[in-house]
Amino acid sequence: MTRPAIDETHDPLRTSWSESANGHGCFPIQNLPLGIFSVAGDTPRGGIAIGDRIVDLKALAASQLLQGDAQRAAQAAAGPCLNALLEMGAQGRVALRKAVSGLLSNPDQRSEIEPLLITQSAAAMHLPAKIGDYTDFYVGIHHATNIGSLFRPDNPLLPNYKHIPIGYHGRASSIRPSGTAIRRPNGQRKAPDADAPLFGPTQKLDYELELGVWVGPGNALGQPIPIGEAGAHIAGLCLLNDWSARDFQAWEYQPLGPFLAKNFLTTISPWIITAEALAPFRIAQPARPDGDPRPLPYLWDDADQAHGALGLTLEVGLRSKVMADAGMDAHRIGRGPASNMYWTVAQMVAHHTCNGCNLQAGDLLGTGTISASTSDGLGSLMEITRNGSAPIELPTGEKRTFLEGGDELTLTATCEADGFVSIGFGECTGLIQNGGIAL
Amino acid sequence: MTRPAIDETHDPLRTSWSESANGHGCFPIQNLPLGIFSVAGDTPRGGIAIGDRIVDLKALAASQLLQGDAQRAAQAAAGPCLNALLEMGAQGRVALRKAVSGLLSNPDQRSEIEPLLITQSAAAMHLPAKIGDYTDFYVGIHHATNIGSLFRPDNPLLPNYKHIPIGYHGRASSIRPSGTAIRRPNGQRKAPDADAPLFGPTQKLDYELELGVWVGPGNALGQPIPIGEAGAHIAGLCLLNDWSARDFQAWEYQPLGPFLAKNFLTTISPWIITAEALAPFRIAQPARPDGDPRPLPYLWDDADQAHGALGLTLEVGLRSKVMADAGMDAHRIGRGPASNMYWTVAQMVAHHTCNGCNLQAGDLLGTGTISASTSDGLGSLMEITRNGSAPIELPTGEKRTFLEGGDELTLTATCEADGFVSIGFGECTGLIQNGGIAL
Repeated sequence: MTRPAIDETHDPLRTSWSESANGHGCFPIQNLPLGIFSVAGDTPRGGIAIGDRIVDLKALAASQLLQGDAQRAAQAAAGPCLNALLEMGAQGRVALRKAVSGLLSNPDQRSEIEPLLITQSAAAMHLPAKIGDYTDFYVGIHHATNIGSLFRPDNPLLPNYKHIPIGYHGRASSIRPSGTAIRRPNGQRKAPDADAPLFGPTQKLDYELELGVWVGPGNALGQPIPIGEAGAHIAGLCLLNDWSARDFQAWEYQPLGPFLAKNFLTTISPWIITAEALAPFRIAQPARPDGDPRPLPYLWDDADQAHGALGLTLEVGLRSKVMADAGMDAHRIGRGPASNMYWTVAQMVAHHTCNGCNLQAGDLLGTGTISASTSDGLGSLMEITRNGSAPIELPTGEKRTFLEGGDELTLTATCEADGFVSIGFGECTGLIQNGGIAL
Repeated sequence: MTRPAIDETHDPLRTSWSESANGHGCFPIQNLPLGIFSVAGDTPRGGIAIGDRIVDLKALAASQLLQGDAQRAAQAAAGPCLNALLEMGAQGRVALRKAVSGLLSNPDQRSEIEPLLITQSAAAMHLPAKIGDYTDFYVGIHHATNIGSLFRPDNPLLPNYKHIPIGYHGRASSIRPSGTAIRRPNGQRKAPDADAPLFGPTQKLDYELELGVWVGPGNALGQPIPIGEAGAHIAGLCLLNDWSARDFQAWEYQPLGPFLAKNFLTTISPWIITAEALAPFRIAQPARPDGDPRPLPYLWDDADQAHGALGLTLEVGLRSKVMADAGMDAHRIGRGPASNMYWTVAQMVAHHTCNGCNLQAGDLLGTGTISASTSDGLGSLMEITRNGSAPIELPTGEKRTFLEGGDELTLTATCEADGFVSIGFGECTGLIQNGGIAL
């Protein structure tokens, strides 16, 4: 996948007059992610995170401080969703990024720009775009192997896995921003030795640690995106938690795949970490193990192999109600690199569209759960506890096989590269409610 | 599912002064389906089919001839999609139906209304709504058994089938109205004895005969729709052709279900046949065979069993280019009743939402392929030709295992009931282009 240029906006010496940005773990001036926020009594609009504040893009567009593509991009981001900005592609994002980076770093602009900043703690975050279609892939090979061995002990990794970036369509309507509470869903489950299924709340509520990929400009129906051009269609990334009811999944998933086990809620982190912000952290896709097949030509691009992966560390924290009441921080239950993806984002895009399927600006792609090869880097409780057979213990002595009422689950991600300022994704968090939904 | 009332709009003696409606196979005055049309140079807007013409709802809304809910419904249908009208539910549809039926049947109104009618042949039809999410079910039990026996000879009908209305998420972006040409998609296929997959145009392009279900008012996330209330959320039906690449499907579908085999295009008939128009044709759901399990309580409703199915005959015609050039009509390759659905529409809705998943106005549900138990009523070529092993012969002597360039495939449906005027769905047609999409 094409790597965006490294320019002055990535300069590690650049700082902002908005002091909270400097040294900020997620949103230094080198990040500048895009989102939709609102403050009490006002309509949602686009914003750019800077430290613990947000640049109001509607106000910036009205300020007449920007010109050309940057002004057009800010105008496209002034409404309640970013689809129009995503549709502009890199040209709009880059112009806006350069202009905003300049305004936020130049002390002479402080008096004009500071009135346009909102404190994040006073704002509500919304979905950044109207999501037309949501597709979830399955490119975390360790996860695919681990889950496969639980569902199909004889046959964990199916024969197509190393030829196809396996994916399926998910539910767009139930995607929600970080912070949305999780109601325990009802559904059918059947014990292997039971005669008939039962209906009721899931007994195996799980999370899945994923990256989300925001689609920028789409393609027309019938016109595939060649792998070498995939980069032009990717706007940026977010974190994605594909909440899963494992008991429902095991009973329902054949032959057409997961459905009610997944579509009750999907949580994403609200900021689009742009392709430009991620440029310094691009790394080579890990070489395929000896003996693995070489992908078909439509899935192969040398440049994508050279820098189509990301130097990104993912982390999962779990905090029970007892821990929260005691003022304790979340307990880390997983940490690992995002490079455990068997397929790159460009390969996902090339495959998705090779039959002519059309992507649209604001579509969301999930990577599928990203687990590391080691036991401290697994991306779901189903893997960590081996389907509930090996509980984990929290610092309070509480045990968990799956998620319980009052548990809060948080995904985070950090990009690091020598010579560059680290950036983060913000949080993707969800609190499991004690009660389920109405029967 | 609640059956709408039979009222004066269903009176078999009612005729229209717009003469082409009387005796019209699809669109007599008892039907009055909803759609979105445009004429050259003008913006798409809502319309109601009457015989071979269309009532322009934008013009009707502007005419001040309607009052109250009927006027609000016409206004909601004046724009380029019917989502706002669908959101209104039965109240809006019924008021509009009664008012338009009255206007079209009363000769005294002819001079005022006739200027608002457009000739269908001069109009282009569009998708009737912006489709947020598209879900495809699998409720045709004969199809599930037939396909299952080809993909899994040892295990055709999986153990969950008679407990769960199996469904999966489809692709909303590639749904197109009747008449859209089909480009043969590229993808991966692998012969059982081959070492590796090949990439290229599908060798097994197939159709699937389905009904589409238009969602009216949605439900909030976390608030299931009880089966007894499902009827209030269904606006109407259409025909749906779930074009399928069988060779891609066999290779890709495990473990997450169909993806590229289906998402290159889905064709629907452009008119929403409303729940009200279908009321006279509601019949009892066929009793489950002895020994089949009784559905769990959330899937059972006596009223739904009493009249949750439809007296509807489905038909598939195939016309090759040779036939078209010779002026021949399509050759019927399948005909059967829609009652071969193991689950009702209300059961589909109750299941889809039982975990809290939210439906939205304008969502589309597919039933899955509806095949009869007899060989003359199968809903796909994969079944008719037993995966290509038993070609069919067209009247020209041409043979078909799967679809070829120049073939035109047309789905139709007719509702009949004693004492009522029959109605049809219009056509759901697609012409297979000779060339595929770019490699």
